[in-house]
Amino acid sequence: MNYQFSKSLDGFSSSAVRDILKLTQGKSIISFAGGLPAEELFPIEAVREAVNRVMDQGKGALQYGLTEGYIPLRQSIAKWMGEKGINVSIDEMLITTGSQQAIDLLTRIYIDPGDVILVEEPTYLAAIQVFQSRGAKIVSVRGDQDGLDPDDLKAKIKEHNPKLAYVIPTFSNPTGKVWSLERRQSVLNICQEANVLILEDDPYGEIKFGDTETYPSIFALSGKAEGSCVVYTSTFSKTVAPALRTGWVVGDADLIRNMTRMKQAADLHSSTLDQQTLYQLMEHFDLNGHIRTIRAHYESRMRIMADLLKEKNWPGVTWVEPKGGMFFWVELPEGMRATDLLPKAVEQGVAFVPGSPFYAGDAKHNTMRLNYTHSDEESLREGMNRLDRAIQSMLAVK
Amino acid sequence: MNYQFSKSLDGFSSSAVRDILKLTQGKSIISFAGGLPAEELFPIEAVREAVNRVMDQGKGALQYGLTEGYIPLRQSIAKWMGEKGINVSIDEMLITTGSQQAIDLLTRIYIDPGDVILVEEPTYLAAIQVFQSRGAKIVSVRGDQDGLDPDDLKAKIKEHNPKLAYVIPTFSNPTGKVWSLERRQSVLNICQEANVLILEDDPYGEIKFGDTETYPSIFALSGKAEGSCVVYTSTFSKTVAPALRTGWVVGDADLIRNMTRMKQAADLHSSTLDQQTLYQLMEHFDLNGHIRTIRAHYESRMRIMADLLKEKNWPGVTWVEPKGGMFFWVELPEGMRATDLLPKAVEQGVAFVPGSPFYAGDAKHNTMRLNYTHSDEESLREGMNRLDRAIQSMLAVK
Repeated sequence: MNYQFSKSLDGFSSSAVRDILKLTQGKSIISFAGGLPAEELFPIEAVREAVNRVMDQGKGALQYGLTEGYIPLRQSIAKWMGEKGINVSIDEMLITTGSQQAIDLLTRIYIDPGDVILVEEPTYLAAIQVFQSRGAKIVSVRGDQDGLDPDDLKAKIKEHNPKLAYVIPTFSNPTGKVWSLERRQSVLNICQEANVLILEDDPYGEIKFGDTETYPSIFALSGKAEGSCVVYTSTFSKTVAPALRTGWVVGDADLIRNMTRMKQAADLHSSTLDQQTLYQLMEHFDLNGHIRTIRAHYESRMRIMADLLKEKNWPGVTWVEPKGGMFFWVELPEGMRATDLLPKAVEQGVAFVPGSPFYAGDAKHNTMRLNYTHSDEESLREGMNRLDRAIQSMLAVK
Repeated sequence: MNYQFSKSLDGFSSSAVRDILKLTQGKSIISFAGGLPAEELFPIEAVREAVNRVMDQGKGALQYGLTEGYIPLRQSIAKWMGEKGINVSIDEMLITTGSQQAIDLLTRIYIDPGDVILVEEPTYLAAIQVFQSRGAKIVSVRGDQDGLDPDDLKAKIKEHNPKLAYVIPTFSNPTGKVWSLERRQSVLNICQEANVLILEDDPYGEIKFGDTETYPSIFALSGKAEGSCVVYTSTFSKTVAPALRTGWVVGDADLIRNMTRMKQAADLHSSTLDQQTLYQLMEHFDLNGHIRTIRAHYESRMRIMADLLKEKNWPGVTWVEPKGGMFFWVELPEGMRATDLLPKAVEQGVAFVPGSPFYAGDAKHNTMRLNYTHSDEESLREGMNRLDRAIQSMLAVK
């Protein structure tokens, strides 16, 4: 049989993270590559208790569920978001298989091949994959530590007439930056004015360090879901556990209704065992207290990596200390390609993600992303020693 | 904000089943509408034990998983399928969020807008939705109780040059028919010859009654996965429980690899809690014994409904007793529209799905689908009495 694949696969890049995982398989590698939470912090006994509570509900708990998601979970999330200043009704919310699915469903109902999507430079690589698979034209907008550059945003809107802007304003992946309040408001105003829908991806918002100032989400700034030009998505993967594979998306009821129709075709509904478990967990477990524990541990790991970066003092290597989230974004010396560094690093027994796949357009090849949440202190130290050897060997060649 | 939805939503019909659910909400309705398994049969204590075994594995059980699916589960499924004459390696298998997602992923990697997909007449309505959302041209092929008509299949291939044929050869939804061995082989040969990929959907294959002869799947007839023109999908929704939302798809490794890439963009992976739970269940629970229990109960319910259909003896109403699966496909008298009958039935307190949404092309409006698996004997009797009153009122008007 001669298979004839669809155009969806054209220009659909393989995931850099996956390729790295393959490279490291079966080796004793310290990985700064993935965006994995620390397993030691997973609230496994609380999850066990929650899932047993679900079983106590009786056999109906194992039946098909609503495409929109388990109603009590949607109510709990709505209440939880309300405490954070985001007011939505359950009709303005859809439960998804991780926030990844929210990105995919919105793209499917909103983007036709050839439509333009604006993204940050750099941005989340698996969002780029979704947009590529849909045949969208992806255009990067310049930014700085405060967020997207309003002037470049205006210029790109004028030039490309985009339908959607995809942003991660709070502890961005990969750069870890936090947009300022002014920048959030300004991007909102510009997109509203130009009728550009904003997809605000917020997987890391809860993972903030120290006394970092938190700002309202762009969605919250837009007022209410009805008629909003912002669609907001988040997930339990970083606050509870990725295995439960549950995210949610909120926005105008009409948008949510259409995403729900698409989700019906995509998979009917997400796991109701997971959804019910998360509902029981939210009811009977101190999730906010647990999030405080995660913050403390991740901040301590981030500081260890920050200190090691300072200590190594590699010439021409720069970074900004993240105020939350899971990553350091590191610039290597001009001309040092992270994709050349990676095999040397793997040889030494450490992995990371080169920065280039996070760029939709022209990539800065001398960038890399380091994750600090999945390694304990010893692994962080040893991993950075290994990375040091790899970088020194690159510097020596130069 | 003026939302500009994508063309995916054009001609994307709302689900008839969902609309009926809305119609019946808050009312005391006996539903023959959904394709719901009997809750009383869910092996909830086995699921509880399995999920606790997963928790016993330690916190790593809650981490991100492989897009391809949990390896031990894929191994268990491969072994289980091997016992049924289908030999595949785990690289030829992808775990999906129900078999619905397998239909969606294959469509996304294989079909471009305007491509032709052949379907049975009638066929599974949520597959039609997927194909519509992709902008495919859907063409129905005639058939009889033995399966697709080979002559019409050849004619439609010649006329439309299709890329894909979607079929449910064993206890079809909605008609409950089983294709004969000859017909399976003949359809396989024709499609192989014409380079048409077959998507064989087999959610009900295990739900067979009495001494019904079972035939190999078309996939098994095709020999091996490598280079096969058949992709096969099935699910645990009907044999274990829908809440676990786990299906699988097998086929040529190249096809599976591309579906995996698309799944990575779609949702990274399906719930690993569910996948690990199903693995533990397959290891420690007599799934085949449980399936025998399900068969016995469903057959008894089917017989009750069959007897009631005979007893009511509505003039001009015909059906074929299903040999497995979950549905009766009923033809009403010529000229009696099931969509006109439905509101009268709901008024009487019973629901069903009118046949028209199961047709991709010209619908037979005097058809309906009755589910017998989700109602106990008392509900079956009472529901059929209510349906009787609705049909009598339609006959009286005529």
